[in-house]
Amino acid sequence: MNSILRGAAVVGQSGGPTAAINASLAGVIETCILHSDVIPKVYGMRNGIEGFLEERLVELNPLFTKKDGFPDTDGLLKRLVHTPASALGSCRKKLPKPADDPGFYENLVALFKKYDIRYFFYIGGNDSMDTVAKLTEYLRTSDYEMRVMGVPKTIDNDLMGTDHTPGFGSAAKYIAAEMQEIVRDCAVYTVKAVTIVEIMGRDAGWLTASAALPNLVSGAGPDYVYLPEVPFDMEAFFGDIARAFERHPNVVVAISEGARFADGRYVGEGTQSGAVDVFGHKYLEGTAKTLELAVKERFGCKVRSIELNLPQRCASHLASATDLSESHLCGENAVSAAIDGLSGKMIAMERAEDSAYRIRYVTKDVTQIANAVRTVPREWIVPENNNVTDECLGWILPLIRGEAEGEWKDGLPVHFVLE
Amino acid sequence: MNSILRGAAVVGQSGGPTAAINASLAGVIETCILHSDVIPKVYGMRNGIEGFLEERLVELNPLFTKKDGFPDTDGLLKRLVHTPASALGSCRKKLPKPADDPGFYENLVALFKKYDIRYFFYIGGNDSMDTVAKLTEYLRTSDYEMRVMGVPKTIDNDLMGTDHTPGFGSAAKYIAAEMQEIVRDCAVYTVKAVTIVEIMGRDAGWLTASAALPNLVSGAGPDYVYLPEVPFDMEAFFGDIARAFERHPNVVVAISEGARFADGRYVGEGTQSGAVDVFGHKYLEGTAKTLELAVKERFGCKVRSIELNLPQRCASHLASATDLSESHLCGENAVSAAIDGLSGKMIAMERAEDSAYRIRYVTKDVTQIANAVRTVPREWIVPENNNVTDECLGWILPLIRGEAEGEWKDGLPVHFVLE
Repeated sequence: MNSILRGAAVVGQSGGPTAAINASLAGVIETCILHSDVIPKVYGMRNGIEGFLEERLVELNPLFTKKDGFPDTDGLLKRLVHTPASALGSCRKKLPKPADDPGFYENLVALFKKYDIRYFFYIGGNDSMDTVAKLTEYLRTSDYEMRVMGVPKTIDNDLMGTDHTPGFGSAAKYIAAEMQEIVRDCAVYTVKAVTIVEIMGRDAGWLTASAALPNLVSGAGPDYVYLPEVPFDMEAFFGDIARAFERHPNVVVAISEGARFADGRYVGEGTQSGAVDVFGHKYLEGTAKTLELAVKERFGCKVRSIELNLPQRCASHLASATDLSESHLCGENAVSAAIDGLSGKMIAMERAEDSAYRIRYVTKDVTQIANAVRTVPREWIVPENNNVTDECLGWILPLIRGEAEGEWKDGLPVHFVLE
Repeated sequence: MNSILRGAAVVGQSGGPTAAINASLAGVIETCILHSDVIPKVYGMRNGIEGFLEERLVELNPLFTKKDGFPDTDGLLKRLVHTPASALGSCRKKLPKPADDPGFYENLVALFKKYDIRYFFYIGGNDSMDTVAKLTEYLRTSDYEMRVMGVPKTIDNDLMGTDHTPGFGSAAKYIAAEMQEIVRDCAVYTVKAVTIVEIMGRDAGWLTASAALPNLVSGAGPDYVYLPEVPFDMEAFFGDIARAFERHPNVVVAISEGARFADGRYVGEGTQSGAVDVFGHKYLEGTAKTLELAVKERFGCKVRSIELNLPQRCASHLASATDLSESHLCGENAVSAAIDGLSGKMIAMERAEDSAYRIRYVTKDVTQIANAVRTVPREWIVPENNNVTDECLGWILPLIRGEAEGEWKDGLPVHFVLE
């Protein structure tokens, strides 16, 4: 047991938004307020580490504490849980290596001292865990005592060291529900038609696999799903379509935006800008559109392409109750673990090895997490590379269970807004 | 009061699916079962009039009647209400004019006689009302006594003679909720970016107008909406974007798929990026995609285009409770009116002229409905052609109120499937 470290906390959100990232934020805030004897203040950094460097901080206690000193869990904190995107704002800043730019970190520590910040919570994906890792690395060489914790977040479910990631379950639920509705919609006509649905996920096919969930639950799922983990073959794809037409006139398939040919070229590469983001990731466009044109030429039938697009990561109206609850618990556990003396860790989920779905919250060394990608195991993709196994779907299914029960007004969800 | 006409009924669905068309079907079935002394059997025609001609009929009473003889309103009928798309299947068949092809209608009547069908209910949009009108016209010259009723349906809200159309409220609710979530999502970064959302509705801008509903409810709506009722001007559009950038870095706009330039060309027509896919096909753009490229060129900032696509018409998980209830009542009223002796009519909704939102169900001569389009009134579009008025939004708002309460299993909505 470490000694008690008293001081303020700061919490930030980074990377792409999800429908559950604010649930983790609510978990952090709530637990800080419950431990106000140790953490008298919790600041939110606007737009992640970028905003912190500009001292754009907001004190969160007054907003989320009731008159009796307890967190306002049934009021604004609940509203925050059901709000999509990052309530504190986000950024995509990549930190320098401590050895390359120690001055950068000296500035950071000066700000920590200025606000008496002893706890740093960062909610995000791979790149955010890289931030946590670098800050931890620098702090080892510093005499400023501080605890740094990562809270995982990514719809892509591609983080190492955790059974799954907060945010994935809600995205998977949205994708599965929309696919089921699209399959129903496409089934109404008797004319031959192919519908191609493009799903997010550059390197990992977890979200595309989720498109097949209705096959397990209701039978109303896509005919095939194509993941980025295995090579995409155009002739084999045409063969799949032809075989599906033998079963019914309306063929529906899902494909990952990151689908690649055997030679490594993206399927949608012909229509892509060539632009890269600050982390060097390529922007992809038009995987489904490319296939739409190819199928139209080969089969001469009606073809439609659909990109599910941003709603995959922000449709909090259809969030998974399981995901929101787990995301909240990841935030709670990050604060508890830091108070207990841990630092340089990410909260991770471990699934019980028995028949019921149960999750245990553990901590993992953040250096083992950052900059690696967890993909769908080969054995969960069928040998024909055009579907996932029932074992894969059964593994995803518990993560989409339960419907979010947020507030509604005038027919629309009520969101939390930080002024 | 007409004499009582005893005989079977047949009900069909036609045109594009909506999230509420099955609620109207449930209303027809329920009311037929409640009047089984007059209508002993209600048949469903598979794939509309096309399936009827092939005698693809299914007797619906056994499926939806409880042992006590009453309709199973809490069981399968409720499930049907919450099922997207057309449970009976659909078609897009245009009927010949009775004068041009009387033989076609003689065949139809022979089938009516074969099944003792005296009631014909057709749920659909403009083209479906054309079917009702032509059948009615023919029957006037025939000695076969039969009553024909239309039940309106279209997400586009472009039917004449009714305050609004069943199906529109649910589509509007989906669009408004997604827009609010997209606006939240886009607000998290501080980097300049434009997001362009393309909304369904080729000639009428009701759905695009609905994208602005969050502006009335929460303030988190798009900066501008562009309707097909007024000409689209690229330079004025660029000016709008520039002005929005003065207010905030994240600009979000909605545009109708049917937006046109002053010379009548569609915005998305014939404009190409010059990009080709891996097969060398030219990449044909949509309306939002065209604007994406134009804004990228003009402003050099990050630009994203989103097509909300099919989910606009099939997202029953987010259906409007008001819409489902009204759609059901339209179905109920069609049966009651036919039993009362009416024929050649469409059920229409009239809004009370007082402050509370109240709807009265009336009948309209179907010949006044078919083949005309009702657009957004000019005075509900602002003089700058880039937004709708609060009066317009206030008119739409009651139609999206209330959340559908369907059945869920394993994290997904449960749908009705006709085997």
